[in-house]
Amino acid sequence: MTETQGSNPSRRALIGWGGAGLALGAAVAGGAVAVAQSGEDADPVADGMGGAVEFHGAHQAGIATPVQDRLHFAAFDVKTDDREAFVQLLKDWTEAARRMTAGKPVGEGAYGGLAEAPPDDTGEALGLKPSRLTLTIGFGPSLFDRFGLKDQRPPALVDLPKFPGDNLERSRTGGDLCVQACADDPQVAVHAIRNLARIGFGKVAVRWSQLGFGKTSSTTPGAQTPRNLFGFKDGTRNIAGTETDRLDEHVWVGAGDGPAWMTGGSYLVARRIRMNIETWDRTSLQEQEDVFGRDKREGAPVGKAKEHDEPFLKAMKPDAHVRLAHPDSNDGITILRRGYSFTDGTDGLGRLDAGLFFLAYQRDVRKGFIPLQRKLAAHDALNEYIQHVGSAVFAVPPGVRDSGDWWGRTLFSKEA
Amino acid sequence: MTETQGSNPSRRALIGWGGAGLALGAAVAGGAVAVAQSGEDADPVADGMGGAVEFHGAHQAGIATPVQDRLHFAAFDVKTDDREAFVQLLKDWTEAARRMTAGKPVGEGAYGGLAEAPPDDTGEALGLKPSRLTLTIGFGPSLFDRFGLKDQRPPALVDLPKFPGDNLERSRTGGDLCVQACADDPQVAVHAIRNLARIGFGKVAVRWSQLGFGKTSSTTPGAQTPRNLFGFKDGTRNIAGTETDRLDEHVWVGAGDGPAWMTGGSYLVARRIRMNIETWDRTSLQEQEDVFGRDKREGAPVGKAKEHDEPFLKAMKPDAHVRLAHPDSNDGITILRRGYSFTDGTDGLGRLDAGLFFLAYQRDVRKGFIPLQRKLAAHDALNEYIQHVGSAVFAVPPGVRDSGDWWGRTLFSKEA
Repeated sequence: MTETQGSNPSRRALIGWGGAGLALGAAVAGGAVAVAQSGEDADPVADGMGGAVEFHGAHQAGIATPVQDRLHFAAFDVKTDDREAFVQLLKDWTEAARRMTAGKPVGEGAYGGLAEAPPDDTGEALGLKPSRLTLTIGFGPSLFDRFGLKDQRPPALVDLPKFPGDNLERSRTGGDLCVQACADDPQVAVHAIRNLARIGFGKVAVRWSQLGFGKTSSTTPGAQTPRNLFGFKDGTRNIAGTETDRLDEHVWVGAGDGPAWMTGGSYLVARRIRMNIETWDRTSLQEQEDVFGRDKREGAPVGKAKEHDEPFLKAMKPDAHVRLAHPDSNDGITILRRGYSFTDGTDGLGRLDAGLFFLAYQRDVRKGFIPLQRKLAAHDALNEYIQHVGSAVFAVPPGVRDSGDWWGRTLFSKEA
Repeated sequence: MTETQGSNPSRRALIGWGGAGLALGAAVAGGAVAVAQSGEDADPVADGMGGAVEFHGAHQAGIATPVQDRLHFAAFDVKTDDREAFVQLLKDWTEAARRMTAGKPVGEGAYGGLAEAPPDDTGEALGLKPSRLTLTIGFGPSLFDRFGLKDQRPPALVDLPKFPGDNLERSRTGGDLCVQACADDPQVAVHAIRNLARIGFGKVAVRWSQLGFGKTSSTTPGAQTPRNLFGFKDGTRNIAGTETDRLDEHVWVGAGDGPAWMTGGSYLVARRIRMNIETWDRTSLQEQEDVFGRDKREGAPVGKAKEHDEPFLKAMKPDAHVRLAHPDSNDGITILRRGYSFTDGTDGLGRLDAGLFFLAYQRDVRKGFIPLQRKLAAHDALNEYIQHVGSAVFAVPPGVRDSGDWWGRTLFSKEA
């Protein structure tokens, strides 16, 4: 089906798409619709819920982009040993991602080119807005055991150590590849992952996937931090998409950081954190506030009035989460968080299987998540109420520069 | 914790709630904020995404109410034999539901009354809008084996028969009670179920739960039907919340229909329908359209131009879904549908575990879902691509009339 994909939307597709499609056609042709830049100058308010986020850029969208409301995340296993076939898949995926993030269906036959063939697009997002969809690809450590890539594995892409308290399920851990789909409409995110999985049929298979129903982080300066399922605001001093200096220092891989192909990329740690909400809910307010080092109502650090007031760490208990995780307690370690709350039915014991799907981007995992989590896993008062049950780490390559570029070109192309 | 719940919001809670809380306070006091009536005169456009749906009424909200975007549904097992304790739970739940649907936290100590006590509300919805939250309770057949209720079980509340092709999982089937939470913000729906589960601790336990990320039905007259995960519009001729005649004929239990306590109520069938999307996605457009009896782009019946055009059933294949399910093929059988798409990770075989959580309301299950499903299970071309894996049926009592009334009073109160 991928052969029929074209970079120019067909008239048929545009007519079918209705008003939104026509507007997007104009945008693609350099026209009138405002398309948000990922990162620096994005404005989610101006964009509105339905806008499109630019797919191309020096960095992949979906990292510094203002955090969308919903998530569908998938880790894939590679099922082919054919390097050329895999590279073709990356090109096909890129083209599909380019179209979907612009609000267009995959391929030109979304509503049916040939009646005898399956439609190029599965159709459930037809008529929906682009909804600020971003698609972000990452390469897991195990990918570098394939395709003669061993020498290209970045030193910063280490296998995560086993942390105290980890209780990882194999079926929620690892992956050769990942795609993070974020959008303000969950149907748009689910549609994107499903269509990528479909295009990859025979070459990759979904290893695990995660739906996130509510964001727990903001990368918009000054915005209120959304609450997690413990009812608290956490990670309030996140890196904003506008803070280019902090992004360069803590998130984007620099030119001298490792293999050249990763310059402009980042490293992603994904952790499925089960929250024992029933236990938490029976805990006193005082204990809850002591555990976080914040008040529950405002999210203000202990002794302060507002969420974004500078915390006075020594006023908190030594094992308070904020105190332990704060850059001042960790030689300045700072990660960009993009986590989402999840609830996936029940656990067989009459309890909701709920928690935080933690997503953090950083310039070097060895200087970001690993030392931070070593400390938290050993000391954090929150550990009594949470358990890490899934884990993965990925090298997130730089952005797709233009319409001729593709995901992973700097790694796979000889001419890179 | 339920002892501290009051029907009047405390100043403390309102202050904490910020602007929305103050506005809601005014609404509760008969003030200026428009509160949508459930059913007949609701207008989702005028309400906006954040509005409150009136909890009180002759019928429970969440049935004829314009369908909200997101769902969290929970089935509960009863864990107590103490009738009085269970009745108290129903009263406590009603009070919590009354507050949450108005956008208020459970109890008056949401941000902490006593620091030494757990907060009355878990907090993750603090600061969020009411988001048109509705909470709808139902009583399963097995509830009537308890509390001396045997004689009160309505004849219309039959155990569902085993249909051809059913492959029901015990862990997704049945339940003594259910609560359907619908809202435009999933965090608001999840918060509501979680807090009800918490209030019920020791008396009830969650048996299974289901998150729905995208509605597949509309009860708004003339609205476009949202697409399911096959990319099709289905059930386009749903009962609208404004069609009082059709609601009375097909949905609301009438005075002569059975036990008096159910008058004004309805019967709910819930089915978890796994959709084999990988197989479907490899099927030709022609086959897909033949299976539904619609075109994919518009949702129009075979040979027609628009979704809502009257279908000409004989133009469809004999086993087309629309043809088999249409009232004209079923002596006028009509049900009100409120289904949601779901995706719950992967199935262990590299496939997304996705499908439709089908919810249908009707006046009598014996004259609604059962005969309809008997026919569909035997003949529907769609059966090649779907499997029913979860099932439950509930008697949904009439609405809570006023601030002194409570869920299930007509069943449990001697004075009813």
